[in-house]
Amino acid sequence: MKDRYLGFVNSPFGTSIARTLGLPKPEVLRRHRADQPEFGGMATIGAGPSPVLFDAILGVLSAVGMTGVAHDSAPGWLPVAARHGAMSGRFEPRSRDAAPADRVHALIFDATGIAESGELHAAYAFFHDAMRSVARSGRIVVFGRAPSCSANPRTATAQRALEGLVRSLGKEARNGITANLVQIDDGADIDATLRFFLSPRSAYVSGQVVHIAAAGDVIPADWSRALAGKRALVTGAARGIGASIAAVLAQHGAIVTGLDTEAARDALDQTMLSIEDLSPSNGAHAALLADIAMPEAAAEIAMALAAAGGIDIVVHNAGITRDKTIARMSGELWDSVIDVNLSAQERIDDALLAQNVLRAGGRIIAVSSISGIAGNRGQTNYATSKAGVIGRVLSMAPVLKASDIAINAVAPGFIETQMTARMPFGVREAGRRLNSMGQGGLPVDVAETVAWLANPGSAGITGNVLRVCGQSLLGA
Amino acid sequence: MKDRYLGFVNSPFGTSIARTLGLPKPEVLRRHRADQPEFGGMATIGAGPSPVLFDAILGVLSAVGMTGVAHDSAPGWLPVAARHGAMSGRFEPRSRDAAPADRVHALIFDATGIAESGELHAAYAFFHDAMRSVARSGRIVVFGRAPSCSANPRTATAQRALEGLVRSLGKEARNGITANLVQIDDGADIDATLRFFLSPRSAYVSGQVVHIAAAGDVIPADWSRALAGKRALVTGAARGIGASIAAVLAQHGAIVTGLDTEAARDALDQTMLSIEDLSPSNGAHAALLADIAMPEAAAEIAMALAAAGGIDIVVHNAGITRDKTIARMSGELWDSVIDVNLSAQERIDDALLAQNVLRAGGRIIAVSSISGIAGNRGQTNYATSKAGVIGRVLSMAPVLKASDIAINAVAPGFIETQMTARMPFGVREAGRRLNSMGQGGLPVDVAETVAWLANPGSAGITGNVLRVCGQSLLGA
Repeated sequence: MKDRYLGFVNSPFGTSIARTLGLPKPEVLRRHRADQPEFGGMATIGAGPSPVLFDAILGVLSAVGMTGVAHDSAPGWLPVAARHGAMSGRFEPRSRDAAPADRVHALIFDATGIAESGELHAAYAFFHDAMRSVARSGRIVVFGRAPSCSANPRTATAQRALEGLVRSLGKEARNGITANLVQIDDGADIDATLRFFLSPRSAYVSGQVVHIAAAGDVIPADWSRALAGKRALVTGAARGIGASIAAVLAQHGAIVTGLDTEAARDALDQTMLSIEDLSPSNGAHAALLADIAMPEAAAEIAMALAAAGGIDIVVHNAGITRDKTIARMSGELWDSVIDVNLSAQERIDDALLAQNVLRAGGRIIAVSSISGIAGNRGQTNYATSKAGVIGRVLSMAPVLKASDIAINAVAPGFIETQMTARMPFGVREAGRRLNSMGQGGLPVDVAETVAWLANPGSAGITGNVLRVCGQSLLGA
Repeated sequence: MKDRYLGFVNSPFGTSIARTLGLPKPEVLRRHRADQPEFGGMATIGAGPSPVLFDAILGVLSAVGMTGVAHDSAPGWLPVAARHGAMSGRFEPRSRDAAPADRVHALIFDATGIAESGELHAAYAFFHDAMRSVARSGRIVVFGRAPSCSANPRTATAQRALEGLVRSLGKEARNGITANLVQIDDGADIDATLRFFLSPRSAYVSGQVVHIAAAGDVIPADWSRALAGKRALVTGAARGIGASIAAVLAQHGAIVTGLDTEAARDALDQTMLSIEDLSPSNGAHAALLADIAMPEAAAEIAMALAAAGGIDIVVHNAGITRDKTIARMSGELWDSVIDVNLSAQERIDDALLAQNVLRAGGRIIAVSSISGIAGNRGQTNYATSKAGVIGRVLSMAPVLKASDIAINAVAPGFIETQMTARMPFGVREAGRRLNSMGQGGLPVDVAETVAWLANPGSAGITGNVLRVCGQSLLGA
């Protein structure tokens, strides 16, 4: 189902109608295209006291061909840039429609040194001065510290306060601009994450908080094929979000095993064929038929993957909805949703881990939902299963650290799929508009988020739940 | 500002209009009234495997004069009731408009023994059978375990899954019915919390998760005056939510010091006089004038309270809004909001703690906001300060445990005050309707939540953030 309103208000005729009537005009989000440069423009740099990330940020900007200019709050940026021989300069306000090379594509604020609430003023000063200069589909990235790891309550308080700032900035920015907060531990590697947030690949991720611990990150030799040599399993890969995840992981270089049920055999075969066409693997991409609701499926999947030499990335995407209010819901509808969406993930991971099929350095990425966070009328079964997925991620993360495996969840909001196309008009329109982007996301937005979490450079990200929801208003 | 729509659709004429036009009809919430019994009707009891709370639940029901009837999932309830000599019986579906004594006022589900996702079926079966029997303004309370304290990931997963269930039930229930999840540690005392959730005092608290640790709870001799002998400080007490908190704490027996600025002197005096009229203290209730934005105020407040013999309950309610988008916001607007809403709390607590003015067994209750959780357009300063308040509560809780002091936050959603009365019509109506109660809350709803957290029986609740929002859709 195409978002006709989005298309209309961005057509020449629709633009003038929208302006005349004062209608909201959601931005056509810039997404990754192979024929367009991924990065470009300038990043304006701001900072609180004692920022620690200038070298790391400069490294990423230089690598992707962006220029960092210093806001008054970040006088230390210029000497760092000079030392690296990087282009730099002082921030000056600009039009958000300036020529591409001159556009402020990103505002990056290093808040790692903010130690008490009074020092938050630096963040205010930066965004006050720079907010209007951010280009359409631009990016706001704030780096801070995990409150739970802060030296004292005052620092923890100020760091937590940044959440309120970033979420408010996301709601003020509009024009397809995202705002996210990245909390780093000492020694954490920010490259994969800053690249993701600067890139059009993160088009529908906004209002999120990510924590990165220090870990044995492996910097990809070729960032455009960061998953080269990795083997990935994607459940529910025949259609929709799962098919997109399989395709995007393959584009990033992974060898993908797409799993779905016998009933979806034809769709799965087509999906895997199109992936082979676009991202050739000499036939190593594979379809695997299994009904994960069957108790024996987990062992069969583990055996099949072991025979192929093991696996590096497991994406638990398979899920079903069987919506009814609880008073009208049969026991079968409850059990099937809990089993497929939650218990099957447990069985599969247990089998993979018991037999060491999931290799060290591996990743588990589970698909949750904002229904699992906020609850939803008519979805007691679905919301329960998806809240359980979050519980798995939080509880397995410390257990899996010993095996050098990271586990995270993505929680999609309103994503345009066959499922949402079948919604009643009012529900669908509300889902599309009640977020900071004013539109639904696309399956590729979820897929790119999964690919970032699967990146060898994201080893320090574990136990996180990332919403892919355009900063939906809905939550808890 | 009166909610005219709520009044209209619940008038005889409006009811028929609403029925004819299919308009939503929010329930007139039952709230506590001194001339009406606080508790009554029946509670239907359900359980997963190995429930541990039947004795504790039965103790509360018996004490408040409610009868517990057993759903098929809770066969163990009947022998426990028999052992205590309590009335009991088996659950049978009933009309939600049955005679009061026959009404199912509450559904209580003991999920403490649920150890894996398959066992969640018991919760489904219970709510499937009983959901339609709950009376208007009824209550759903699920008891579970903190996922982080669970024995293994499968149990943590199933326990976390309950969050999705409870939040969905809250969205399905309507008719003024609330749904909340209480996570208990071994040895935790549930009395104060179960009483609160069964009572009309919790009318606007829904979709929340509360954690109770084992603690040295003191069971009040007289639950209707649970705060007798306690001294409470309420900042911003002259008007609105603060005035209501001061009044409600006094009704519960506390001696209240209401603090506000010199500019609010007349309003504060009036508030304190009316409190003295309704809850006489022989003049021990006191007004305290101070501008908490002044650096010296914290020491002065500590000195004044020390002279009065110390304090047991500190309610950080004082707060200001200075709304502007960040690009239009002056530095003064940023600084004043951060200082009054956040930094002043830090200064006051530090002064009280340094001089041991806040006694052992004490409570700090800070007023946050759902803006501090979700962020808000035009409120970067306010949302930052209120997110910081949450950071304070989370980071101070472990520190204060050593002094036997609990710290929690309440986060109001849309509460009918002078502030909301000044909102534009559309914003106000959206705030009123976009929650599971279909209406705004009242200041007393926040105040009663504060009183519950201040109860001597709530010592095990610390580091919690409780939204008082009628399960607003907004969140993160």
